[in-house]
Amino acid sequence: MTEQTVNQESLQGRLFSKLEASNEDMIQIRRYLHRHPELSFKEYKTAQYIQDFYTELGVEFRANVGGNGVVARIKGAKPGKTVALRADFDALPIQDQKEVEYKSTVDGVMHACGHDGHTATLLTLAKALHELRDELSGEYVMIHQHAEEFAPGGAISMIGDGCLDGVDAIFGTHLWSQTPYGTVEYRTGPIMAAADRFEIKVQGRGGHGANPHQTKDAVVIGSQLVQNLQQLVSRRVDPIESAVLSVGSFVAENAFNVIADSAELKGTVRTFQPEIRDLMETEITRVVEGTAISTDSQIDCKYYRGYPAVVNHAAETDFLVKTIEGLEGVEAVEGAPQMGGEDFAYYLENVPGTFFFTGAAPEEPYPHHHPRFDFDERAMLQAAKILGAAATGYQGE
Amino acid sequence: MTEQTVNQESLQGRLFSKLEASNEDMIQIRRYLHRHPELSFKEYKTAQYIQDFYTELGVEFRANVGGNGVVARIKGAKPGKTVALRADFDALPIQDQKEVEYKSTVDGVMHACGHDGHTATLLTLAKALHELRDELSGEYVMIHQHAEEFAPGGAISMIGDGCLDGVDAIFGTHLWSQTPYGTVEYRTGPIMAAADRFEIKVQGRGGHGANPHQTKDAVVIGSQLVQNLQQLVSRRVDPIESAVLSVGSFVAENAFNVIADSAELKGTVRTFQPEIRDLMETEITRVVEGTAISTDSQIDCKYYRGYPAVVNHAAETDFLVKTIEGLEGVEAVEGAPQMGGEDFAYYLENVPGTFFFTGAAPEEPYPHHHPRFDFDERAMLQAAKILGAAATGYQGE
Amino acid sequence: MTEQTVNQESLQGRLFSKLEASNEDMIQIRRYLHRHPELSFKEYKTAQYIQDFYTELGVEFRANVGGNGVVARIKGAKPGKTVALRADFDALPIQDQKEVEYKSTVDGVMHACGHDGHTATLLTLAKALHELRDELSGEYVMIHQHAEEFAPGGAISMIGDGCLDGVDAIFGTHLWSQTPYGTVEYRTGPIMAAADRFEIKVQGRGGHGANPHQTKDAVVIGSQLVQNLQQLVSRRVDPIESAVLSVGSFVAENAFNVIADSAELKGTVRTFQPEIRDLMETEITRVVEGTAISTDSQIDCKYYRGYPAVVNHAAETDFLVKTIEGLEGVEAVEGAPQMGGEDFAYYLENVPGTFFFTGAAPEEPYPHHHPRFDFDERAMLQAAKILGAAATGYQGE
Amino acid sequence: MTEQTVNQESLQGRLFSKLEASNEDMIQIRRYLHRHPELSFKEYKTAQYIQDFYTELGVEFRANVGGNGVVARIKGAKPGKTVALRADFDALPIQDQKEVEYKSTVDGVMHACGHDGHTATLLTLAKALHELRDELSGEYVMIHQHAEEFAPGGAISMIGDGCLDGVDAIFGTHLWSQTPYGTVEYRTGPIMAAADRFEIKVQGRGGHGANPHQTKDAVVIGSQLVQNLQQLVSRRVDPIESAVLSVGSFVAENAFNVIADSAELKGTVRTFQPEIRDLMETEITRVVEGTAISTDSQIDCKYYRGYPAVVNHAAETDFLVKTIEGLEGVEAVEGAPQMGGEDFAYYLENVPGTFFFTGAAPEEPYPHHHPRFDFDERAMLQAAKILGAAATGYQGE
Repeated sequence: MTEQTVNQESLQGRLFSKLEASNEDMIQIRRYLHRHPELSFKEYKTAQYIQDFYTELGVEFRANVGGNGVVARIKGAKPGKTVALRADFDALPIQDQKEVEYKSTVDGVMHACGHDGHTATLLTLAKALHELRDELSGEYVMIHQHAEEFAPGGAISMIGDGCLDGVDAIFGTHLWSQTPYGTVEYRTGPIMAAADRFEIKVQGRGGHGANPHQTKDAVVIGSQLVQNLQQLVSRRVDPIESAVLSVGSFVAENAFNVIADSAELKGTVRTFQPEIRDLMETEITRVVEGTAISTDSQIDCKYYRGYPAVVNHAAETDFLVKTIEGLEGVEAVEGAPQMGGEDFAYYLENVPGTFFFTGAAPEEPYPHHHPRFDFDERAMLQAAKILGAAATGYQGE
Repeated sequence: MTEQTVNQESLQGRLFSKLEASNEDMIQIRRYLHRHPELSFKEYKTAQYIQDFYTELGVEFRANVGGNGVVARIKGAKPGKTVALRADFDALPIQDQKEVEYKSTVDGVMHACGHDGHTATLLTLAKALHELRDELSGEYVMIHQHAEEFAPGGAISMIGDGCLDGVDAIFGTHLWSQTPYGTVEYRTGPIMAAADRFEIKVQGRGGHGANPHQTKDAVVIGSQLVQNLQQLVSRRVDPIESAVLSVGSFVAENAFNVIADSAELKGTVRTFQPEIRDLMETEITRVVEGTAISTDSQIDCKYYRGYPAVVNHAAETDFLVKTIEGLEGVEAVEGAPQMGGEDFAYYLENVPGTFFFTGAAPEEPYPHHHPRFDFDERAMLQAAKILGAAATGYQGE
Repeated sequence: MTEQTVNQESLQGRLFSKLEASNEDMIQIRRYLHRHPELSFKEYKTAQYIQDFYTELGVEFRANVGGNGVVARIKGAKPGKTVALRADFDALPIQDQKEVEYKSTVDGVMHACGHDGHTATLLTLAKALHELRDELSGEYVMIHQHAEEFAPGGAISMIGDGCLDGVDAIFGTHLWSQTPYGTVEYRTGPIMAAADRFEIKVQGRGGHGANPHQTKDAVVIGSQLVQNLQQLVSRRVDPIESAVLSVGSFVAENAFNVIADSAELKGTVRTFQPEIRDLMETEITRVVEGTAISTDSQIDCKYYRGYPAVVNHAAETDFLVKTIEGLEGVEAVEGAPQMGGEDFAYYLENVPGTFFFTGAAPEEPYPHHHPRFDFDERAMLQAAKILGAAATGYQGE
Repeated sequence: MTEQTVNQESLQGRLFSKLEASNEDMIQIRRYLHRHPELSFKEYKTAQYIQDFYTELGVEFRANVGGNGVVARIKGAKPGKTVALRADFDALPIQDQKEVEYKSTVDGVMHACGHDGHTATLLTLAKALHELRDELSGEYVMIHQHAEEFAPGGAISMIGDGCLDGVDAIFGTHLWSQTPYGTVEYRTGPIMAAADRFEIKVQGRGGHGANPHQTKDAVVIGSQLVQNLQQLVSRRVDPIESAVLSVGSFVAENAFNVIADSAELKGTVRTFQPEIRDLMETEITRVVEGTAISTDSQIDCKYYRGYPAVVNHAAETDFLVKTIEGLEGVEAVEGAPQMGGEDFAYYLENVPGTFFFTGAAPEEPYPHHHPRFDFDERAMLQAAKILGAAATGYQGE
């Protein structure tokens, strides 16, 4: 073991001590954000909150990076590599249904995916790094990204606005309610799916509920579509490959005794392979076209390609695993790829890096995006330590 | 032909002249109401408008009859029968999509069934009868009914509040966009259907659109229900009999990448025969129960019995047909029963009478309850004449 | 009451006595035929049986009329009208599942509609009329028709082959398991529906059950068709009108681990109104076309127009009702129209007449065409009396 | 390179020369078998053909091993390991639709999976090994297995009857129409799926096609089942995992104007993971139960567990890959697991070994089990060489 490693370890020790000391503050930050969620591309107050934090800390930052993004840079006293860390900070149009004191105060909007935790983690880590800046080599880029939940997402415009300039590597994590606390899931290659979106507008002909023959019932037509679209995954996709098609929203809101004039369906498609992605788009179009003919209606379908798959780089993933193996109280396991999408994909198309899941299952875990979603807040400290250890340790790579 | 008949005819002539002279005012009343629609049970301003009309006219009325109902009584100088005429005045939760200068000014609310026309017709007829009161025998009860569109409806509470007290017979009409102007449709026996309502709440389990296996997809479950409910009419009902089941509303509003936690379906069932009505309720319950088991979800179904069938009395229907045969420019034809419901049914369970359709098809007719619904305004004058001739003529029956 | 009527009555009395005396023979004839059913257009032995009966009786007949039809003519001693009576004699491709001593001896073939009873009735009536021929006026044409169950049916070719030549009126009945013994159902105008047939051939692409993505699954496509076709009746047909669409046969027979290359669907459509008949054909074509596009498969649909509606003539129906009112132990009631088809329709397009249902419900009634169908054999004597009374009584019309 | 290896190589050279010399005979054997396919468990003549081959060759064999199985043993002059090679020989209930001179002569039965080729390959290899027996070490067990296509399969009873006694390792291959000639696909761990079977009997209530309300339409109920079962894969299974559910057979054969009394569905389920296998069985049961309630019908579902997954052993798979790398004109690639089932699974539960796919795509490849399935006959020689090289080479392991 070289001298440098010893110093590195003691640096890590000091970093961890600072993080542990800030743990209660970190939880309060998270809970504040949780109470005040904002939808993608509308995270004005959250961005201001982050800016205020850095202002108070005395750390240089750029606001309005590619939209509502905030990028802070912490320069170490010694030369070295530039390592980026990223946390997203938008929330979801979901009604918070859990009963906790930090419950969302905004009707119909909720941090149902953990981005509040990501932000609290990165701010706390930034504070610790800033305080240790005299001991640090290299530079640390804190990417606070807006709008991860809604394509085209904030990553692509933040990259366009220079957030990766000079960056040698990037690391990111997602607090994960489906993985137990103490476990980190990593994976080389595809770890998250390409995430596309579609919108289908059924234009039937409305009328009185008692006279179906004078109408074209948009609720019945929409229901046919939902049923027939479900068969694409089970019949058209190679069972060895993965694909998901979910219609998340079906809206035809009317009086009970009206026949619906129109219905709006919105959904998502997840795939890992480009050919399966193409196939799904083609087959959705086919089902829509055929159903319009069957039912003598107008059906408009728009398919929006969202984020590509998140493909982790091998060297940075191996480095991460080694880093975690050096830590106490956390185990790295190879995880299955996740069907969720992430615009972290774009960072990895530009610089090497890796994205991983930090286990954060609470006692009664709900899926991400569920109205009762929550996570184990201890995982924030763990995530901060791993990101901190990786970022500072990467100087030795 | 007796002396009395001659007088009667000349009375009718004077009545018709007055109605013709008020035609432009009647159209303006209708258009004013059309611009200011109010939902069932919330027709406060419309009720006030009607009250103001009678106040100005100097006709005695009772307000807040069984809710927002208004009942005016016009006493003729001579003794005779008491004849009631009824017009409803509520509107529907539909967005007005037609481009006319009298378009609804209320977002999402619209007179999409013609009740504005009914009200204008009855007010105008009331004015004419009031002016001719010295020549009239008997008494004329103008029933301005609120809340026809939404069960339990206004009729039942207005009857409970005495609106039929002393009434010998009742007549009512519906301006009808599907029947050409100049034609009246009558029918002895059932002319409109029993109209029931159901509400189905699918409680699945929400989650991220990428992870269907962790959820119970309420959109897919709701769509299955819609498809399976459609088969009740085609498979369970005797094809010689009539039944309609329409799911008018399907709401599971979410972000595109969420799997729906719940979905709400609302619909209507129309039948003429009590056995078929029972059958439909039983079978809906069965489909709901089975689908909940198939999909391992919670599905709650509430079935609300609405208005019974409108069953016209033979003698009053025959009298109406005779009356119409005496008029110019209008032809009475026996119509098929309509699947629509009407709480006029309750009046006919209490006193003899008949309900008929006054042809009012505009150039481009849309079904009732359609966002582009409108009617030929000339039909109001025709309806006023028929109701007036029937009410005054009924004194000779 | 005139002299002639008295004679007529006593003739009827003698006719009825003869029929009662032959009742046991009639039951044995029926049971023999029930044991030996033959499919439509293949009723060779049954036709021979009928011919043998007339040969033994010494009554002139023509065999092979328009196919397997047999027409016997019984001339009365006195001049008069020519009245035709018709009985059909084909069976169905249904496995007899009831346990009686006269159960079908032919695997998969069964008299599941009562044509065995019709034939026994008409033969027995012929014998009685033949024995009374010296007292009779006019001529009696016994039309034993093959192939009622399968379009184009035997009626049209028998008419083409002259079976109605010189006929003044025709009467026919159907023994009816859904109507109690002692009741006859009549109706002026449409009494039975237009009965069409369709055949749909789904050509997908077969393959191994484990590799759906390499195939186009004809079972899934066929099931989609069945579901979507069910919605035509519930959504496209005016609920006041009647229509039926039934897919009776769905065949895609394969090993369990194969994906079906093709599937064959066969079904029937029943309507009373020509416009609804056209609508159903158009909409079926639309659903087939759209489903082929949705599923990228080949679907061939053939629609065969079958028998038109059976439309009874008013005068002959009134005469029949009067005739029945003169009989003991039987009551005539106006029946609802039946959705079943009947090629008796063609006779009524050529000569006046009427078709009626003779109540024949057994203790445990099954629908016609059910594998356990049977009827109350007492109804044959009643049918013979009514047909006999009508045929001989019609001389006085 | 040792002396032994040199000898080994020259032995392999002589083996390959013999195989090449027998190539035309091998093709003729295959074509003879192709013309005379026999269904699983009924392969009496094929078993006799194999026995005759060995009798003529003068090789000792056991007939009727665990049913129709045949096991021949070729003992080398020198001591060594006992290596088993397996070929299956049953055919499928599929109508041969291709036009070749060796087309199946048996109506509705066809070698649509290539077992004819497997048998020809193994017989030809046996002949060559027998002729070289004086040079060989160890013993070679030729397992000619009946009934691979239909669970419980022949493997399990042949093992019970001792076919693996004393065997040190086993190799088997499948000629594969979806892989190009010259390529071999191998895989350590699961290479083929667990293959289960289910049978669903819908008991509705039959009747006349015109009277749906008197019936419970088994075709409509069966179609609902097919549609709803399709959603299990798309909604209930983790998209990262694999599962297939195919309903291969849907039979409700009736006259067009009958409503189906019953329908029979047969299908298959494929999975790799025991938990997913359990899940599919549970969910099928749930769908069946719910649909029976929804439709007020009786539905009986039997689920038969078939072969478990084929799980290749690592050491034998590595050895195979090394062996192939030493051969000309053939390349070994790691293949994806196949959803097809194989009772080769049972051999691998008892002795080490590996199962691989020998590329055999013809010019116009059809899926296995397709009525036009065929393979490139050159692949038989390649398969014989690989199996021969592996079996003899395994002596050096």
